[in-house]
Amino acid sequence: MDLDDNIFMLPGPVKMHPRVLRAMSLPARAHRDPTFFEIHREIRELLKYTFQTNYDVAVISGSGTAGMDAAISNLLTKKHTAVVAHNGKFGERLVEIVKRYSNAIAVGAEWGEVIDTEKVAEAVEENDVDAVVLCHNETSTGVTNPAWEIGKIAKKHGLLYILDGITSVGGIEVRPEKMGADVVVFGSQKCVAAPAGMAALAVSPRAEEMMVENPPYYLDLKKHLEKYNNPEKADTPYTCAIPLFQALLEALRMIKEEGIEERWRKCAAMGEATREAVKAMGLKLFPRDERYASNTLTAIWLPEGVTDKEFRGTLKEKYHVVVAGAQEHIKGKVFRIGHMGIVKWTDLAATIVAIEATMRELGLDVERGAGPGVIAEHMARYGL
Amino acid sequence: MDLDDNIFMLPGPVKMHPRVLRAMSLPARAHRDPTFFEIHREIRELLKYTFQTNYDVAVISGSGTAGMDAAISNLLTKKHTAVVAHNGKFGERLVEIVKRYSNAIAVGAEWGEVIDTEKVAEAVEENDVDAVVLCHNETSTGVTNPAWEIGKIAKKHGLLYILDGITSVGGIEVRPEKMGADVVVFGSQKCVAAPAGMAALAVSPRAEEMMVENPPYYLDLKKHLEKYNNPEKADTPYTCAIPLFQALLEALRMIKEEGIEERWRKCAAMGEATREAVKAMGLKLFPRDERYASNTLTAIWLPEGVTDKEFRGTLKEKYHVVVAGAQEHIKGKVFRIGHMGIVKWTDLAATIVAIEATMRELGLDVERGAGPGVIAEHMARYGL
Repeated sequence: MDLDDNIFMLPGPVKMHPRVLRAMSLPARAHRDPTFFEIHREIRELLKYTFQTNYDVAVISGSGTAGMDAAISNLLTKKHTAVVAHNGKFGERLVEIVKRYSNAIAVGAEWGEVIDTEKVAEAVEENDVDAVVLCHNETSTGVTNPAWEIGKIAKKHGLLYILDGITSVGGIEVRPEKMGADVVVFGSQKCVAAPAGMAALAVSPRAEEMMVENPPYYLDLKKHLEKYNNPEKADTPYTCAIPLFQALLEALRMIKEEGIEERWRKCAAMGEATREAVKAMGLKLFPRDERYASNTLTAIWLPEGVTDKEFRGTLKEKYHVVVAGAQEHIKGKVFRIGHMGIVKWTDLAATIVAIEATMRELGLDVERGAGPGVIAEHMARYGL
Repeated sequence: MDLDDNIFMLPGPVKMHPRVLRAMSLPARAHRDPTFFEIHREIRELLKYTFQTNYDVAVISGSGTAGMDAAISNLLTKKHTAVVAHNGKFGERLVEIVKRYSNAIAVGAEWGEVIDTEKVAEAVEENDVDAVVLCHNETSTGVTNPAWEIGKIAKKHGLLYILDGITSVGGIEVRPEKMGADVVVFGSQKCVAAPAGMAALAVSPRAEEMMVENPPYYLDLKKHLEKYNNPEKADTPYTCAIPLFQALLEALRMIKEEGIEERWRKCAAMGEATREAVKAMGLKLFPRDERYASNTLTAIWLPEGVTDKEFRGTLKEKYHVVVAGAQEHIKGKVFRIGHMGIVKWTDLAATIVAIEATMRELGLDVERGAGPGVIAEHMARYGL
C-alpha cells in the first residue's frame, strides 16, 4: 500500500501532519543541550494546556502501556488494593498491571457495555480500598466510561484515582483537578496526533507524595517528574526518543493553535456524525448504549454475511481507506473507525462514501447516499 | 545551530544517514499489519547479524537503560547476588539497577581505569554469586572493559553474564555465544546509527529459562521475546515506537551492506587515528592505559588553561563541530569525540583540523598540521 496515498482512520496510530513528520526527521541532535531543554520546556507547558492541568507532567519514552505501568507501579504495592473497572481489552490490561504490583478488585462489564458506577461505588464501600483505576475511553469497544462520576466516588472516599486517558486526552474533555484524578496518562499516537512511542503523564501533588520506594528503575516516576518539572531546565532522566519529542512538540503546538475545546468539539461532532451515518447505512453500533459511544472512535458490527477480510480488505485495497478491525473475541465481528487528532471532515466523508461503495460491491443493501448525506449535514452544521 | 550543517561527533546520539531519516518520516502506518510484521521480521534477522548471535532477540521501545533494566529485572531478584563491575557513570548506573531488584557486590575502578579482572574473579570466588554484570564500553570515560576475559570468569563458575553493550555492539567485536554472555543490550542511537528510543537485546536460551515471575509489566522480557521471535510473525507486546522501527530497519540494512566486521575494523582504525592525532596535538587521553581506550569514542583531557565552554563553544559556534563534554566529577575537565556508526574519515579529519584551529585561537601551543597529518596517514593506510 502507498503510505502517502491513503485515508488513515485508525483509532491510533493516527494520521500525522507534515509539520509533525518534518520535525521528526531533523538530523541528529544532542538531547543534553540547551536547545533541547528548550524543546522539553515548551512540551511541558503545552502538555499542561493539553491536559488542562496545573499538575506536574512527564513524558516517558515508551508506549501508553509504559505510562500506565509507571503510574501503577509507582503508587501501588502489595499493601494496597485498587478497584479496577474494566469493560474491554485495555481495562483488562489495567487489571493485569495492578495485579503485578498490588491487589485488584476487578469490577467488570461486558465488552460494549459501559462501566456501572453503582458497582464501582459498592466495591469501594464494601472493601478496604486505596485507589480506583479506570480506562476512560475503551479503545477496543468504542465506549467512553463515566470518568467524571467515578472521580466523584474516588474523591468521596479520599482514594487515589488513576485514569487511563490514552485515547481520551486531547479528544474528550479531561480536567484532572476537576475530575479528582491523581494521574492521567495519554499515548502520543492517539488524540494528539504525534508518532507512537511516548506516554505523557499528569500527576497530582498528592500522588507525588505517595510514590513508593524502589519502583521499576526505568519507570521511576519521581525521577521523571523531578527532571521534567525542574524550573531551570526540563530534562529526562535517561536518553529520550529524541526525534519523537521533536514531533510531539509540533503536534502539541497544533493543538494550542486550534484550541483544546475546539478539538473536543470537533471530536464530538465527528463522533455524532459517524454514528448517525453508519446507522443510516443500516449498520449497528457495537456500544450497547449510544449515550456512552466514544467521540474519538466508533466501533461498529460488521454487516452480516461478509467477512472482516472482504469488508476491510475492499476498503483498503480498492479505496485506500484504512480502518481497524477488532481484538480478542470480537475479532472478525467488529470494525472501528478512528476520528481523533487531525482527521478532517473530508477524510470522514470519503470514508463513509467508501463504506457505501464497499457494501454495494459486496452485495449488501444500503440506501444510496444515506450515510454520506448525514456527513454532509453534520459538516455544514459544524460550520466548516 | 543549523542542524543540517554541522559535523556531529557525539558518542550518541550519532549522525543518521538520510536513508534512515527518510524511513523515519514516512506517514502513519498500522503496527498490527502484515507489512509491519515484515519490518519486524527483517529487523529481527538483521539484529542477529549485528549481534553476531543465534540467540533470540527483542527490541524495547525505550532507552538503552530500559534495555538494561529489562535484562536485570527479569533475571535477578532479592534471592540473587550479582557482581557488578563499574568504572564510570554507566557502570555505576548498573549497580543502581541491580540494587533495585537484587543484591550487588560492586567491584569498582577509578574513572579512566579499566576493570581489574582479578578483582572480578576474587569477588566471584569469595561470594555466593549468581551473575556478573558489566558495562562493556564505558561511554563516560572512553574505556573498553575486558568483556571477553570477564566472560571466561562467568563461564568458569556457571554464572549468568549480563553485558551492557550499549556503545559497543556494532562498533567493537561482540559475539554473545563465544563471550559466554547471556544477555547483551545495545542502544539504537549509538553504533548502529539509528535514532534514540530503542534498546535491542539478545538473550541466551539459558537466560530465557531463568526469567523471574512478575517482572515490571512493560519490561516483561518473556513476553517481548515470545512475540518478537514468533516464526509466523514478529510483533511487540505493546505499541512500538513505529517511526523509530522503520528507521532502525534502514540503519541495520546499512550495517549488513557494509559488513559488521568492516564496521569493527573502521572503528578500530578511527579510534587509533583519533588517539594518535590528539596526542600529536599535545593533548592527553583520559583513559590511563591506552590499551583499553575505546574504539567507538575517545575521551580527552581538556587542554590546561581553557574552559569547556571556551573549547567546545568555539568548536561548535565557529566551526560547527559538535563534540561531547563529560559528566559528574570530570565535567568541565574532559571532552569526548564519538567515532562510531556512519561517521566518515572526512568527518573525523574536519574535527581534528577544527580542534587545531580552536587551540590556535585560544592561544594554546599546537604543532601546525600534526593532528591532521596523523589522520591523513591513517586514512591513506585504511585504504579509502
